Amino acid sequence: MSLPAFPPKTLMIAQSGGPSCAINATLAGALSAASESDCVQRILGAFHGIEGVLNENTIDLTGFSDFDRLSATPAMALGSCRKKLPEAFSDPIYEEIFHKLQKENVRWFLYIGGNDSMDTVRRLSEFFAVKKAQEPHLEVPVVFGLPKTIDNDLSACDHTPGYGSAARYLYQTVQELIRDTAIYAVPSVTIVEVMGRNAGWLTLAAGLPKFMGGEKPDIIAIPEVAFDEKAFIEKIRSLHQHTHSVIAVVSEGIRSRSGEYVGMENKSGAVDVFGHAYLSGVGKYLELLVKKEIGCKVRSIELNLMQRCSAHIASKTDIDESFAVGMFGAQQALMGVTGKMAVILREETKSGYHAIYGCEEIERCANHERLVPEKWYDLEDPKVQQEIVAYIRPLIKGKAVSFDDEYGTAGFIDWLKFSRQEGR
Amino acid sequence: MSLPAFPPKTLMIAQSGGPSCAINATLAGALSAASESDCVQRILGAFHGIEGVLNENTIDLTGFSDFDRLSATPAMALGSCRKKLPEAFSDPIYEEIFHKLQKENVRWFLYIGGNDSMDTVRRLSEFFAVKKAQEPHLEVPVVFGLPKTIDNDLSACDHTPGYGSAARYLYQTVQELIRDTAIYAVPSVTIVEVMGRNAGWLTLAAGLPKFMGGEKPDIIAIPEVAFDEKAFIEKIRSLHQHTHSVIAVVSEGIRSRSGEYVGMENKSGAVDVFGHAYLSGVGKYLELLVKKEIGCKVRSIELNLMQRCSAHIASKTDIDESFAVGMFGAQQALMGVTGKMAVILREETKSGYHAIYGCEEIERCANHERLVPEKWYDLEDPKVQQEIVAYIRPLIKGKAVSFDDEYGTAGFIDWLKFSRQEGR
Repeated sequence: MSLPAFPPKTLMIAQSGGPSCAINATLAGALSAASESDCVQRILGAFHGIEGVLNENTIDLTGFSDFDRLSATPAMALGSCRKKLPEAFSDPIYEEIFHKLQKENVRWFLYIGGNDSMDTVRRLSEFFAVKKAQEPHLEVPVVFGLPKTIDNDLSACDHTPGYGSAARYLYQTVQELIRDTAIYAVPSVTIVEVMGRNAGWLTLAAGLPKFMGGEKPDIIAIPEVAFDEKAFIEKIRSLHQHTHSVIAVVSEGIRSRSGEYVGMENKSGAVDVFGHAYLSGVGKYLELLVKKEIGCKVRSIELNLMQRCSAHIASKTDIDESFAVGMFGAQQALMGVTGKMAVILREETKSGYHAIYGCEEIERCANHERLVPEKWYDLEDPKVQQEIVAYIRPLIKGKAVSFDDEYGTAGFIDWLKFSRQEGR
Repeated sequence: MSLPAFPPKTLMIAQSGGPSCAINATLAGALSAASESDCVQRILGAFHGIEGVLNENTIDLTGFSDFDRLSATPAMALGSCRKKLPEAFSDPIYEEIFHKLQKENVRWFLYIGGNDSMDTVRRLSEFFAVKKAQEPHLEVPVVFGLPKTIDNDLSACDHTPGYGSAARYLYQTVQELIRDTAIYAVPSVTIVEVMGRNAGWLTLAAGLPKFMGGEKPDIIAIPEVAFDEKAFIEKIRSLHQHTHSVIAVVSEGIRSRSGEYVGMENKSGAVDVFGHAYLSGVGKYLELLVKKEIGCKVRSIELNLMQRCSAHIASKTDIDESFAVGMFGAQQALMGVTGKMAVILREETKSGYHAIYGCEEIERCANHERLVPEKWYDLEDPKVQQEIVAYIRPLIKGKAVSFDDEYGTAGFIDWLKFSRQEGR
């Protein structure tokens, strides 16, 4: 391909990290702001995050306007990557990225992602600042971060784009599982494993049916609070005196008092059907533990990818805010703000919950995890339950628009597929 | 409790077998017909199927009218059981059931369930017929079956209540999983395990995104067609030349050419973390197989109970038909029809698909499984794909009413909970 002599002033955008229902809404919001700006002459999407920049694997999105349909599409229309940039700016990758962006006349580089992706934003903006200091005549691109993660663990945010939809999925699904597992008049235990390696935000959403006045789920375990296997078994024994069907929701990352992931110590000896070390999630581990210690009917359920990609049940509040934070962030970048991330904050007024948007220094966002606060550790305390409900409930409000509701969600936008067909 | 001297003429209803999104709609339909009838003086629900009859564990539902809310509630408001009645009518349980029904003046006994539950309907109606022949002066109750099963495997039906909602869930969820698993530029395999021990109907619904013109899911495996592990691995190798993310949807009950469940032969040697025999679903087994043979990124997803209880995504067509078949069946029973099951049939007219209702001899329904027809075994054949779409598409049409959509499905009806609180 021959390049034009003077590539137009370009805004480039990419997505990185794990997917969610809302990350395409943030992309749509940013594209909407960019297309309304007089400064932007061309919009490029890079496929698979920073890798698309390096491989020159891009798509021209100038003039794109189907924002509603893009917002309703789960996962990432531009694909993702898990690439971490090296520590030392002497690594040639930094000059390579700079060169590739310069070649396309990229003035604004927007990166949508979570903790790890914000590390990329931080390093690139620092590298460009160093470069500009050394060679003041150089044009260096603005680098700006747009948040996303269902884990809700980005610091400096009240909550993150994607969390509300995952929380809505979990709330509704656990309500349905409570009914499904209650039908037989025999003692049973159901363990529902929820995403969250270090933070319990998603599991709190799975606990909403209880926090909002129900009696179930009976047990709620988050990574922030040490998990005691003996106490877990004793609690089930005690619960079985009043209820047939015990249901526990547990974060995948719950840990013992010694800080080990639950079940990890015990995995050494076991082998799978092919003779390899047996590795399972904590749900399966607790299922086997209950079977051994109590011997009743027991089942574990891993909510797996469904908790992050169920666009058909996405929260309207989440999708709207994800779009708005993308738009706000792009506007900030277009005004020249660099090395920052857009954040969603909360305002409680007489008329209720409002989201407000702001910018945060990237150092405060990259590589930090925001955990469930210690004041919420006692999940049986009615005051704690009330605070959790007040926090989560506004975020799951409303059903987002989905397309072709007559037969099921369809009409998704799939640029990734297009990129592959084109052999890029 | 003292009984009135002359208990009113009673219709008793119970639910049995596995739950679904639609079984409460059938209950609602039957209750609606019973409450409109002049013959019925009292309506009793028996908790946990036939066990509630034996234990006199019942609830008075006369005057109940919240049919919409009941129809939107997943699982079984009256609970369930897995009890199979014995072969020989000389077993004292038959006289006991008769006595319990007589004591409550039950004239009509309605049983909602699948294959096994219809066996209960068959035996009871035969026993009562024998009894009536021996003692013609006796009043014996009408016994009538109402169908349900997400498996869609009841013979004499075009399709079963509950299937449409499960199919809608599978169609939408697989579309979302296809996007979620496509985002990384590395070869990967995702195996989605779908319910269906013997029949592939649910897996066909999971295959809809392909049958309706998409390229994925790449592999679709049903129990009716022998599964070849070597061919499976070869197919993945070949697919990886064109696509990064291979996605396979497989029935839990797929079998090898020799008729063994896939993975069963290999399970003998392996042990779990507690030293017990390692048992896993076919999804996990195929995950380990791909890891061993191909070594790429691989994940298995079990759609578990969510595929049968996700009321938030239930099909309007399914819920409406489930209500209608309950109403129709109760009306038949009230006219004295006994030893039969209500069925849903299909009529294709110029204006499209219509459900029509009928009665079928219980012998034709009990213990028989309706499998995917042989003419559909070649799932790559466009003509087959077209026929499958024409069959399933009308059944998943429309989104059923759900309550409190602002924050998520709630306001479910929970008699089972009530029964426990009352200590019954």
